[in-house]
Amino acid sequence: MIGRLNHVAIAVKDLAASTALYRDTLGARVSQPLPQPEHGVTVVFVELPNTKVELLEPMGADSPIAKFLERNPDGGIHHICYEVDDILAARDRLKAQGARVLGSGEPRIGAHGKPVLFLHPKDFCGTLVELEQA
Amino acid sequence: MIGRLNHVAIAVKDLAASTALYRDTLGARVSQPLPQPEHGVTVVFVELPNTKVELLEPMGADSPIAKFLERNPDGGIHHICYEVDDILAARDRLKAQGARVLGSGEPRIGAHGKPVLFLHPKDFCGTLVELEQA
Repeated sequence: MIGRLNHVAIAVKDLAASTALYRDTLGARVSQPLPQPEHGVTVVFVELPNTKVELLEPMGADSPIAKFLERNPDGGIHHICYEVDDILAARDRLKAQGARVLGSGEPRIGAHGKPVLFLHPKDFCGTLVELEQA
Repeated sequence: MIGRLNHVAIAVKDLAASTALYRDTLGARVSQPLPQPEHGVTVVFVELPNTKVELLEPMGADSPIAKFLERNPDGGIHHICYEVDDILAARDRLKAQGARVLGSGEPRIGAHGKPVLFLHPKDFCGTLVELEQA
């Protein structure tokens, strides 16, 4: 069911410093910062040959990653995103097997303009999993 | 400098259950368990179309992931591995920029039979980074 690893998301406190680290120290290609007020984050995409790393900086105190950064002041891997061909079929299959879908259970439009869902970390090896329609 | 995302490693307490989750619930292709006594772990590879997830179960109390699982009893993402063309050149470039290389600083042979190094999480957005010679 799951397909490509779409991205690994790393929450960071200082997006400019983290972008410079990936660009200058690790020598990767990075995007301009992309504010996403509807998701409460500003994102920089680190473009690797086979996938992306996304650096997420909280936008405001209500940001979904603000609490994560309180617990992890150095930053850290926040979630991992797998692509699926049919997000509603994937959701129904997962729910039938007892996995918990976060929020209302209805897909929202994610950072790439496609429907996404998040799955409960306790059901997936302590890892917050995002599913994105391929 | 960094190239492909070689793998994302997830530490788990129960490798059989986590393998079944990725195979049966998430519908991914998984390998047989591969004991790696020299690294203190047993590994299952989850083969995605563009990269791998590695499920790591500690082998013995001295395992490098045992402490991580004490702090994260549900499991969690342990490290992320980027490929580099020349691991010694990469190491020297990183050290010259002030990044800390873990251990002796000399590459060891990793899980895929290639030289690897680990970088200090505090220097890389709170993320333990493995570099592997491509």
